[in-house]
Amino acid sequence: MGKTQHSAHGQQPLPRVVIVGAGFGGLAAAAALARAPAEVTVVDRRNYHLFQPLLYQVATAALSPADIAWPIRGILARQANARVEMGRVTGVDRGAREVVLSCGRRLPYDYLVLATGARHSYFGHEDWAHAAPGLKKIDDATLIRQRVLLAFERAEVEPDALEQRRLLTFVVVGAGPTGVEMAGAIAELARNALARDFRHIDPASARVLLVEAGTRVLPSFPDALSRRAQRALEHLGVEVRLARPVTRCDEGGVVLDDERIAARTIVWAAGVMASPAARWLGAQADRSGRVKVREDLSVEGDPDVFVIGDTACAEGADGRPLPGVAPVAKHMGAYVGRRIARRIRGRERGDEPAFRYRDYGAMATIGRKAAVATFGRVRLWGLPAWLLWALAHVYFLIGARNRLVVSVNWAWSYVTFERGARLITGATEEQPEAEAMQARAAVPAPRPSRAA
Amino acid sequence: MGKTQHSAHGQQPLPRVVIVGAGFGGLAAAAALARAPAEVTVVDRRNYHLFQPLLYQVATAALSPADIAWPIRGILARQANARVEMGRVTGVDRGAREVVLSCGRRLPYDYLVLATGARHSYFGHEDWAHAAPGLKKIDDATLIRQRVLLAFERAEVEPDALEQRRLLTFVVVGAGPTGVEMAGAIAELARNALARDFRHIDPASARVLLVEAGTRVLPSFPDALSRRAQRALEHLGVEVRLARPVTRCDEGGVVLDDERIAARTIVWAAGVMASPAARWLGAQADRSGRVKVREDLSVEGDPDVFVIGDTACAEGADGRPLPGVAPVAKHMGAYVGRRIARRIRGRERGDEPAFRYRDYGAMATIGRKAAVATFGRVRLWGLPAWLLWALAHVYFLIGARNRLVVSVNWAWSYVTFERGARLITGATEEQPEAEAMQARAAVPAPRPSRAA
Repeated sequence: MGKTQHSAHGQQPLPRVVIVGAGFGGLAAAAALARAPAEVTVVDRRNYHLFQPLLYQVATAALSPADIAWPIRGILARQANARVEMGRVTGVDRGAREVVLSCGRRLPYDYLVLATGARHSYFGHEDWAHAAPGLKKIDDATLIRQRVLLAFERAEVEPDALEQRRLLTFVVVGAGPTGVEMAGAIAELARNALARDFRHIDPASARVLLVEAGTRVLPSFPDALSRRAQRALEHLGVEVRLARPVTRCDEGGVVLDDERIAARTIVWAAGVMASPAARWLGAQADRSGRVKVREDLSVEGDPDVFVIGDTACAEGADGRPLPGVAPVAKHMGAYVGRRIARRIRGRERGDEPAFRYRDYGAMATIGRKAAVATFGRVRLWGLPAWLLWALAHVYFLIGARNRLVVSVNWAWSYVTFERGARLITGATEEQPEAEAMQARAAVPAPRPSRAA
Repeated sequence: MGKTQHSAHGQQPLPRVVIVGAGFGGLAAAAALARAPAEVTVVDRRNYHLFQPLLYQVATAALSPADIAWPIRGILARQANARVEMGRVTGVDRGAREVVLSCGRRLPYDYLVLATGARHSYFGHEDWAHAAPGLKKIDDATLIRQRVLLAFERAEVEPDALEQRRLLTFVVVGAGPTGVEMAGAIAELARNALARDFRHIDPASARVLLVEAGTRVLPSFPDALSRRAQRALEHLGVEVRLARPVTRCDEGGVVLDDERIAARTIVWAAGVMASPAARWLGAQADRSGRVKVREDLSVEGDPDVFVIGDTACAEGADGRPLPGVAPVAKHMGAYVGRRIARRIRGRERGDEPAFRYRDYGAMATIGRKAAVATFGRVRLWGLPAWLLWALAHVYFLIGARNRLVVSVNWAWSYVTFERGARLITGATEEQPEAEAMQARAAVPAPRPSRAA
C-alpha cells in the first residue's frame, strides 16, 4: 500500500482512521481530523462528493452534474494527513479490524467511520424501481431527466390522443422536500422552459401530480408552512393528492387505492433505506436499516467504530429520531472527528459530552419563486424564503467555481426561463446506440500482471 | 402528423423541406430558410446541437456536456416555419420522396437536405473501437473522460510497477486538430489539475504519446505552423511520434510497426467515415463514404436532394476536396438553404452560382497557452493565437448562457488549474451499478395503444 506514515516523535506508525463515504458526514469527519496525528483514508465508490439537495435540479435540466458534484481528491488535496481511495466496500471484518473492498483489497483501521448514506426504498416493492426511479445519485438524475424530456419528445409525434395524454402526465410519489421540489420543478419546466419549443403539443398542458400517503405535504415542517407549500404548488399547476397511498407502480402509471392514473413518467420520492452498514457490522438496525448507535455515535460493543448520517439511527433532544438531512450528517461527522482526534491524542476524559444536534432549521423550495423555511420560531415563505434558500445553497456548494457557475445558471434561468442542461444523453430503448452501450460496459479493467 | 401549414395565398400546402441532422450544416440551412414560405422539419436523433470543436474539453474534464450542447428546439423556437423531430433516420425512399425513421414513421419531403455528419473510422479495424474510442459524440467524450480519470485512480492503488506504468500511459492516435488538442489537454490535466490529488503516484509522471502515420502534426496547416505546434506539444511533455502507422490497438496498448507501447488508455483521432447517407440514396460515394455532389451540392439526378457538411464530397477552388470542418458545413448549409428558398419562390434563374467555399482560415489549440491559426497569409501562434481561438470559440458557442458559463469555467481553470468537470459517471466494470444499467436499458418505450 505504499509508504506508511509515522508520527513526528519516532517510528511508531500513526493510527489509521478509515472513513467510508464522502458525503456531508464523511467529509465533515475528515475535516475535523485535519490536524490530528493520524492517517486518514476516505473511501468512496464515486470519485466525487455530491451536493444531494440540488440533485432534483439536475433531474429537471436546470443544472449539470458537474455543477453539484466535486472531486473528493480536490476537496482533500490540501489535507496532508488524508488520502482518498475509490472503491466499493462490501463488508467490515470487525475481528481483523479491516474494511473489505469489492476488488479484494482490505484496509486496516484503528478507527472506523461509516457514513454510507441511504438509497430510496420501495417498501418491499422493489419491482417498482424500473417504472418509478428514485433520486439519490447522479445517474438517477440523468435518467429522470432523460425520461421527462423524452416524454415531451414522444408526445409531440404521438398520433393517439390518449397515449399523448399519458406521455404528458407526470406523477411524483411522496411529498417530502424532494418530492415537493421535483413536482414544482417539472411543472415549471413544462410551463416555462419548454413552452415555445413544440409545434403539436402544448407543454403547458402537462399534468403534474404529487401523491402522498400522509395528510399533508412536507410533514416534517410546521402545519402552517405545509399549507403554504401546498398553495404554492397548486399555484404552479401541480395537483396535490393527499392521504392516497400508492398501491402499484408500472410502466402505464400508478394506482392509488381505487384510482388508476395513466402516466408514462413516475418519480419515486417516498422513502429511503439505509446502506447495508448494519449488515457489514452485524449490528442492530431499525426498520429503515439504520444502525442503532450509542450517544457518542459508536456502535454497541465497539467504541472505535462510528456510524453517522443517514446510516445512523440517533435520537434528538426530544427523543425522536433525527431526520436524514445534510445538517445532521455534518454535525455528526464533525462530532465524531473531534472525538477520534481527542482519543488519539490521549485527551479524552471520562465525561465527554454525548452527541447533541442543534437544529438550525429546515427549508424546501417550490419552483423559482417560493420556498418555506423554519428556524426555531421564525417561519418564512414566498420569495423571501426562496432567496434565503438560494443564498444558503449557493453558499454551501463546495468550491468557488461551482458557486459562480450555479449563480450564473440560476440568474440566467430566472430571467429567461431557459433551461440550459436539457440534454437527453445516454442510450434509450428507441435509440439503442448499441456501440456506446457496449463500449461503456466494456471499460477495460486492467488486472495486475507482469507481462508487458 | 397534426396540422398542415398553408401558404398565405390560399389552400395550397406549403412545400416541405426536411433537413436531417442538426449540426452546423443543418442548422445553417434551416436558418437560411427562416423567411421562406415553407414547412421546415429538422430531424435529429439527439435533442441537442453539439459544438463538436470543444468536445475534447468534455473528454478532458474541463467542460460539462451541457456547456457545449444546446437543445435544438430552443435554437429554433422562434423560427415559426420550423419544427423539430427527434428520431433516427434509417433510409430515404427517393421514389415516394419520403424519409424513413427507425420508429416506422415516414416524413414526406419536397426538398431534402442531408447533413448527417461523420463518425470516426478505424480503416477496416472496427474491432479496435473498444480499446480505442473515438471522439464524435457526447457519450464518446464522457466515456473517454471516465477512462482517463479511472486510469489515475487505478494507478494510485496498483501495487505492480509495470501495470502502474501502463495505467499512466496515454496514447492519442492521429495528429489532426482533434488529436493535437486531446494530447495537449491530457498532458495538462496530468501536470496541473491532478498534480496535488494523489498520494502514491505522481500524475505529472504520466506519459502522453501522440502517434501519427504522416510526417507532421496538423497536416492541413502550413509547414511552419506544424513545427510550432509540435514544439508546443513537446513543451507540455507530449511525446510526438511521426511517420509511425498504428498496426494494432488492444486493451494492452498500441503497436507501431515494430514497437509495442503498453498503455491502458487509447484515444482514436485518426480518421472519419461519413454517415450512411450515400447508402440511403443509392448514390456514388468516395472512399470515406462521402456522397459525390454536383456543384450546387445536389445529388446526381435529383436536383431537390442536397448533401452538405462532412457527408458531402465537394471540391474547393483548388480542385482539392473540402475538409470536414464546421465553417465548410455552415457555408454549405447557408448556400443550400438560400437555393431552396429561391426555388420555392420561383426566383431561381438559369445561371445560379455554384457553391464556392471562401476559406477564412483554421485554428488548433495546444493546451491553455498556445495555439496555431492561419488566415490567408496571416499566421499566428503562441498566446495570441490561443486568445483568438478562445474568443472565436466562445463567440460561436450558441446561446449567451453557454458563453458566460464557458468563459467562467475557462477563466477559473486558467487561474487555478482546477478542472471542475472531472466526474467519473456511468457504470464501470469494477463498479457495476447493476441497477442503474438495468434501469437505463429499460426506459419504458410507450407504444400507441387505446387501452387506458
